Amino acid sequence: MTGITNTGSNRMVLLSGRAHPELAENIASELGTELVPTDAYDFANGETYVRFGESVRGADAFLIQSHPAPINQWLMEQLIMIDSLKRASAKSITVVSPFYPYARQDKKHRGREPISARLIADLYKTAGADRLMSVDLHTAQIQGFFDGPLDHLMAIPLLSDYVRSVVDVDNVTVVSPDTGRVRVAEQWAERLGGAPLAFVHKTRDITVPNQAVSKEVVGNIQGRTCVLIDDMIDTGGTITGAVQVLKNQGATNVIIAATHAVFSHPAVERLANCGADEVVVTDTLPVPQEHTFENLTVLSIAPLIARAIQEVFEDGSVTSLFNGHS
Amino acid sequence: MTGITNTGSNRMVLLSGRAHPELAENIASELGTELVPTDAYDFANGETYVRFGESVRGADAFLIQSHPAPINQWLMEQLIMIDSLKRASAKSITVVSPFYPYARQDKKHRGREPISARLIADLYKTAGADRLMSVDLHTAQIQGFFDGPLDHLMAIPLLSDYVRSVVDVDNVTVVSPDTGRVRVAEQWAERLGGAPLAFVHKTRDITVPNQAVSKEVVGNIQGRTCVLIDDMIDTGGTITGAVQVLKNQGATNVIIAATHAVFSHPAVERLANCGADEVVVTDTLPVPQEHTFENLTVLSIAPLIARAIQEVFEDGSVTSLFNGHS
Amino acid sequence: MTGITNTGSNRMVLLSGRAHPELAENIASELGTELVPTDAYDFANGETYVRFGESVRGADAFLIQSHPAPINQWLMEQLIMIDSLKRASAKSITVVSPFYPYARQDKKHRGREPISARLIADLYKTAGADRLMSVDLHTAQIQGFFDGPLDHLMAIPLLSDYVRSVVDVDNVTVVSPDTGRVRVAEQWAERLGGAPLAFVHKTRDITVPNQAVSKEVVGNIQGRTCVLIDDMIDTGGTITGAVQVLKNQGATNVIIAATHAVFSHPAVERLANCGADEVVVTDTLPVPQEHTFENLTVLSIAPLIARAIQEVFEDGSVTSLFNGHS
Amino acid sequence: MTGITNTGSNRMVLLSGRAHPELAENIASELGTELVPTDAYDFANGETYVRFGESVRGADAFLIQSHPAPINQWLMEQLIMIDSLKRASAKSITVVSPFYPYARQDKKHRGREPISARLIADLYKTAGADRLMSVDLHTAQIQGFFDGPLDHLMAIPLLSDYVRSVVDVDNVTVVSPDTGRVRVAEQWAERLGGAPLAFVHKTRDITVPNQAVSKEVVGNIQGRTCVLIDDMIDTGGTITGAVQVLKNQGATNVIIAATHAVFSHPAVERLANCGADEVVVTDTLPVPQEHTFENLTVLSIAPLIARAIQEVFEDGSVTSLFNGHS
Amino acid sequence: MTGITNTGSNRMVLLSGRAHPELAENIASELGTELVPTDAYDFANGETYVRFGESVRGADAFLIQSHPAPINQWLMEQLIMIDSLKRASAKSITVVSPFYPYARQDKKHRGREPISARLIADLYKTAGADRLMSVDLHTAQIQGFFDGPLDHLMAIPLLSDYVRSVVDVDNVTVVSPDTGRVRVAEQWAERLGGAPLAFVHKTRDITVPNQAVSKEVVGNIQGRTCVLIDDMIDTGGTITGAVQVLKNQGATNVIIAATHAVFSHPAVERLANCGADEVVVTDTLPVPQEHTFENLTVLSIAPLIARAIQEVFEDGSVTSLFNGHS
Amino acid sequence: MTGITNTGSNRMVLLSGRAHPELAENIASELGTELVPTDAYDFANGETYVRFGESVRGADAFLIQSHPAPINQWLMEQLIMIDSLKRASAKSITVVSPFYPYARQDKKHRGREPISARLIADLYKTAGADRLMSVDLHTAQIQGFFDGPLDHLMAIPLLSDYVRSVVDVDNVTVVSPDTGRVRVAEQWAERLGGAPLAFVHKTRDITVPNQAVSKEVVGNIQGRTCVLIDDMIDTGGTITGAVQVLKNQGATNVIIAATHAVFSHPAVERLANCGADEVVVTDTLPVPQEHTFENLTVLSIAPLIARAIQEVFEDGSVTSLFNGHS
Repeated sequence: MTGITNTGSNRMVLLSGRAHPELAENIASELGTELVPTDAYDFANGETYVRFGESVRGADAFLIQSHPAPINQWLMEQLIMIDSLKRASAKSITVVSPFYPYARQDKKHRGREPISARLIADLYKTAGADRLMSVDLHTAQIQGFFDGPLDHLMAIPLLSDYVRSVVDVDNVTVVSPDTGRVRVAEQWAERLGGAPLAFVHKTRDITVPNQAVSKEVVGNIQGRTCVLIDDMIDTGGTITGAVQVLKNQGATNVIIAATHAVFSHPAVERLANCGADEVVVTDTLPVPQEHTFENLTVLSIAPLIARAIQEVFEDGSVTSLFNGHS
Repeated sequence: MTGITNTGSNRMVLLSGRAHPELAENIASELGTELVPTDAYDFANGETYVRFGESVRGADAFLIQSHPAPINQWLMEQLIMIDSLKRASAKSITVVSPFYPYARQDKKHRGREPISARLIADLYKTAGADRLMSVDLHTAQIQGFFDGPLDHLMAIPLLSDYVRSVVDVDNVTVVSPDTGRVRVAEQWAERLGGAPLAFVHKTRDITVPNQAVSKEVVGNIQGRTCVLIDDMIDTGGTITGAVQVLKNQGATNVIIAATHAVFSHPAVERLANCGADEVVVTDTLPVPQEHTFENLTVLSIAPLIARAIQEVFEDGSVTSLFNGHS
Repeated sequence: MTGITNTGSNRMVLLSGRAHPELAENIASELGTELVPTDAYDFANGETYVRFGESVRGADAFLIQSHPAPINQWLMEQLIMIDSLKRASAKSITVVSPFYPYARQDKKHRGREPISARLIADLYKTAGADRLMSVDLHTAQIQGFFDGPLDHLMAIPLLSDYVRSVVDVDNVTVVSPDTGRVRVAEQWAERLGGAPLAFVHKTRDITVPNQAVSKEVVGNIQGRTCVLIDDMIDTGGTITGAVQVLKNQGATNVIIAATHAVFSHPAVERLANCGADEVVVTDTLPVPQEHTFENLTVLSIAPLIARAIQEVFEDGSVTSLFNGHS
Repeated sequence: MTGITNTGSNRMVLLSGRAHPELAENIASELGTELVPTDAYDFANGETYVRFGESVRGADAFLIQSHPAPINQWLMEQLIMIDSLKRASAKSITVVSPFYPYARQDKKHRGREPISARLIADLYKTAGADRLMSVDLHTAQIQGFFDGPLDHLMAIPLLSDYVRSVVDVDNVTVVSPDTGRVRVAEQWAERLGGAPLAFVHKTRDITVPNQAVSKEVVGNIQGRTCVLIDDMIDTGGTITGAVQVLKNQGATNVIIAATHAVFSHPAVERLANCGADEVVVTDTLPVPQEHTFENLTVLSIAPLIARAIQEVFEDGSVTSLFNGHS
Repeated sequence: MTGITNTGSNRMVLLSGRAHPELAENIASELGTELVPTDAYDFANGETYVRFGESVRGADAFLIQSHPAPINQWLMEQLIMIDSLKRASAKSITVVSPFYPYARQDKKHRGREPISARLIADLYKTAGADRLMSVDLHTAQIQGFFDGPLDHLMAIPLLSDYVRSVVDVDNVTVVSPDTGRVRVAEQWAERLGGAPLAFVHKTRDITVPNQAVSKEVVGNIQGRTCVLIDDMIDTGGTITGAVQVLKNQGATNVIIAATHAVFSHPAVERLANCGADEVVVTDTLPVPQEHTFENLTVLSIAPLIARAIQEVFEDGSVTSLFNGHS
Repeated sequence: MTGITNTGSNRMVLLSGRAHPELAENIASELGTELVPTDAYDFANGETYVRFGESVRGADAFLIQSHPAPINQWLMEQLIMIDSLKRASAKSITVVSPFYPYARQDKKHRGREPISARLIADLYKTAGADRLMSVDLHTAQIQGFFDGPLDHLMAIPLLSDYVRSVVDVDNVTVVSPDTGRVRVAEQWAERLGGAPLAFVHKTRDITVPNQAVSKEVVGNIQGRTCVLIDDMIDTGGTITGAVQVLKNQGATNVIIAATHAVFSHPAVERLANCGADEVVVTDTLPVPQEHTFENLTVLSIAPLIARAIQEVFEDGSVTSLFNGHS
């Protein structure tokens, strides 16, 4: 037979956009390696330029980008980086987006709206992504938006282990801040030893004219420690409003736990002053110094992502690591 | 200029699979036309054969198929029909699946599972579908599984108008049978004039050893008429279990309302004997004579679908018709 | 250079649908391994659920499914399994369908028909298949329906070696049961030392009014042992009708040889009573106990498929193994 | 509502490559129009240039190209023309290839061969073709190679009507020149009132050492007028060899009928001298003056194609026109 | 025949992103219609929301967006709008991007760079665009990046007609500011009656140690009015540097003409003070008040785009309108 | 865990079309291996047949084809070979086309033209190419026509090193033969130590009636050695015309340097007699004996391509090898 034969080997490389370099560096550090040095900057008119400083030919590339504001900026940077990797002959491209962008626009709430979360999945695919990795998708159905493997990591174990260490589990009620998160509250309740559930929702008080809505708690929270959960905190209006209602209706303590600290203005002010005993989040999004406040606890997501990347690179089971999710 | 010019006209044709011909005929009748005569049968080894009895060249084809058991059979028949339409030069193909098949497998609940609901959307696309039309998707995110327009019709107005005509609205509580439908219960509550909400869920009673789970109601249902809602009733275990719990905890009356009457064995027996005052469904799936029982009310979905087809054919707004959903 | 390097290794896994587990087990056994443990069952409404019991991440997956009745059921199961493998990050997915489903609908016999055999190829591709493997396609052109490699295995050597061991080759005529298989009969004739050819066909006897068709043999079969060949036996009408005609016109013995034992009702009764001396088939489709009869010989296709899988996994030449076909 | 509305009209345009302009002009003439004036020429290094002389924006374009030698030249010209039409905003592009190129390479005869006929379908699709139209495909399965509508026209009615006018039908036997065309011979036999069938094939005479093959007729042709049919005549070796054998074994007359007159060297010489009484073909391929001979009859395919184009443009049924094929 | 028939009509709608509403309004005004009312805003975390206020079902949609800084923001908004149009069943979607984003990254200048201009074309396609329309692409090859029709409008006639009205054509030399635009300068020269050409380029003066580069004019500009042309002016460094050199080497007057007024900081300052007699641009990009200066002339591109949209909607020839370029 | 594991190895194979076998053999020889033996020939009607003589299953295949006249013939052969490789289960397919076909048709020069260079990239992709490799693309934007990696090799170092060895660099002016190549001339100038630039272009002398065009040099060439560069020499009209003009206007010597020796008639005659001192090209295209002449120097491109193939196979950096281009 003609031809040339060699014994193969596999190389994994880590790359990062500019949105949250600390997270990427922490992941690299967990894995005992370094990020590929990368030139990335914006031209004067806002166009983004990217160039990698090392060959990635034949490598399994993991491209880490976080999506704080300005989110469209970081998204386009990420797409351009994927294109660079594809054209530079990377063997496979895994997009690591700890906070999936546009996750809330996952359906048409009304006619003539986009489904931006699906669009994002298609843009990743078109640019050249082979696989996605993300943490706590807003709805798990987003997994189905991508045509290929999506490793869906769960921060609930990380968050709930921490919460468990600071509360009396027997006195906890898990609370969803609206009607759409009750299922997730149930998952939390299981992790906290079968705690009872409650939720807050808006209702129209029809006996009072011209007064549109009031908030109401369904479930028993009297004298309880409420663990108020959500996947993300954006401006914080809904969740801090819920703290108010819980307190008013007799909750003793409230702890807020959420994976993604979007913290758009005026979230920090609201959270600092809402009466919650503690706010627990992860660093899937950067939490700059000016977004911190006294009762805020930020847990590092880097070890979880690092382990997942390692398993993917070594063809191990991500499922076994993360409690069956993926 | 060379060439031949004529003034165009548009033709719409309706076609139906064999799963639920009455529904298709009712839709055709609402529209004042007839179904395209179609040969469809199975060979001895189970392969499905289809041939249309009229030219569909250049037509806007609406292919209606329902998905009761054996669901894989009707799905393959539908895919084959789409292929026939494509190869017979239909101008556009709109797939009308009132009950979206495999809607519950819309995410990976555990590792190494399929996302069958996305697969179905891709199979439709591959076979040649340009657009989908469906009623009350299990989760609205399924809209995003299809790469193209999906007209999402809502049966809640139809069902709630009926319910409103048989209950005292001031005494109603809307109940979700589990934690995943509380959002939909909220939509119902709005339609019923701001009714209060409740939900049933399983909990682990940790005080009783070896006894795994009991069901519990969260919310106030004492002395109330409970409208217990769901998108579909399959074997009926969850929903009839919920009736029990509601009755036990003091509900006066229970009315079950659901869009899709899957009615797998032993749903009929369970529903007939569960103590519900009435069970209201639509005919998105066939409800054969042997599946009827005393308190069952079946509302026809044909007028809704017919109107939507007409709007699509005439480029009208489906949004304006159906309360903003699609 | 940054990054992490390891030396790669390849893992091959075998998976099976529920249609014909014995065949899959025999193939695994030939290869000295076992099938990946798999949960597969149908929900009450007929929806199929699948989950693999072991990680398949990074593996070369070979998914074996046979396609007896109910064929649409097994096809959908197979598509869902492919989707699972894709989303579970299998490195490559080879679909092994020993009997290619819908192979006879490989063209439009009349207008407004589907080309289901092409549709099947596209459905496999859409679900995630990288490569197909099949045995004795109804027409070899089906190879061209799939956009990728299709390993086309031939059972003629297996069948003809057996036939050669039970007949006097010098007295054999190879007979095609209709006008469409004469080319295949010619291939058989070459394998049986240049045996003469004949075929049976329907003709319209225009001299007898109102009598539509009679069957006629073209070629010399007087006093010969006829090896009547086909790719599959479905209801057996054509082939057992051919036995009749051959016997009537002077054939001494008739041996039927076909690859795929579809055996739809009433094939078994017809075959058992048609006067053929022996019926030889393979087990590409399951031949349950109730389908066996006295003169039936079933040859195992497992060794052939096992060798092909091994060659594919080891990048060997399938061509050299199977006489130039693939 | 905003926007501008007008009443639509449809325009059909005919375009032609340089391979067989007479055919395209005849089709245009049948339709009462003219071809779009087109610049097409080759640069000195063989690159083909094309530009259309009129706007085709919004038009239903029918692009006619024939495929005689040098076939790759005409194929590339056709692909480039399709690209031009796509980029010039034609509304739809129907490729009319009366003789489908590379039709004989419709499967892998041996390992490591291409399936060029599928490749051609994909190249047409990639360039921008929406629909194909062809005459008498070498195998009907080629319909399934294209992902879209393929109108498959049949020349058998045209040819058999002519043959019927020149023979005594009661004395005719239809003969296939090899084992692969017996099915088509059967279709001819039906059109000629149920005529008997025969075929010629090569056999290995094992009694004579070192003598590889002889040709043999299976079926009764003694004293009959043989209508020897094929889809195409290339170098004419097989079919003129068959004439020899038929004559030797007692046929009174032989008429050759085939759709596609490929007529590669030395077909003309062979056909002129083979002893056939008449050779009947169509002009799907150009038959230049130097390829004509005394007993050759060329029937015009233009009316058939013109009618098909008209039906496609007007959304009529091609099926009803052409006896159920397409 | 079954079905319902109506006579079709076509509706064209105009939509606009938020980047440059004046241009879109001017285009609408030229066409005698209005923009579809549209809700578009950014959430606190930067995610963009879009919803159209009127049905666009069945309409030919023209989506106008300009691309000034922050360019990634406007690009994502545009992609999301395309997705909305697709899912709202627009019949066709034409993307009008007068200034093609990322046009300068149209090749890999060095290894491991992206080709962002191709990526943009693919993102448009993936989101749902059927056709593109743009003005004066940085390189005409970008036409080939999109898989479909791209109407390439030319502003040179508009600009050169203006320039011709303010200069003495007989004394003009057309100058390219670098080596890459000489071909375009040649097109200008033709429009200005065969004016001579020159170009400026950087050179390394090897006689002076440690002095890297100086600028040099190739061509005769002594005592001439120089029309210095480019497709866009970004920070203005190159072009104002060229003015300097031209003046230094004896040019009497310099007029700068460019299509796209990117005008990134400090372009305005540079242009105002560079010594050019006049700077002529179009409004393909917004030129806000603070970017204007004394010698700036802004020509409106709206009439050109409006005419092109009208021709596309009415299937007219864009080629004839715009001097053969499209 | 079930399954079978082995340690992988990689095999690279080289294949060649029939257009320029010497180049492929030289590349193989540089790499120390041989070409895969291949059957390739044309049938009498011009259809091309291809079959590889060895298994390529699992191999990284590099398919080398050159594109002299008849270019469409070699292109189709190449596409058919790619299809064969795909269906024979090659792991990856890299198409090596040293002279990219149809590179000059890289945009629509006028309306209703094709963009053939983009079409070619799509045809390669459709047939099954994973990656392209080419030398000195006519415009670098062609890189963006392919959706995947394209390794763009540069012959300028090879050519300029040679030129530098035969001229006095201090007296050199680099000349572009028209306005479109000035940028490339600039790259040459850098490699030749900062040599000055000039270009030739056609101009319309408006003072002389009825005399359409004359050629003119812009830049200083008096008494200089002109290195007249281009990417390809086709019929040689433009470049030999430029020699004339340069000589007339005082150039002392002229050396022509171009990568691709298309040499269509009458290029050889023109070049031999144009007065150039030397013509330097590479063998990306075959230069047959009858195309050689006294002053012609042909440099071998094989070492450059061989090194690139090796780097691709071994996942090395092509960028570092070839001065940053790719």
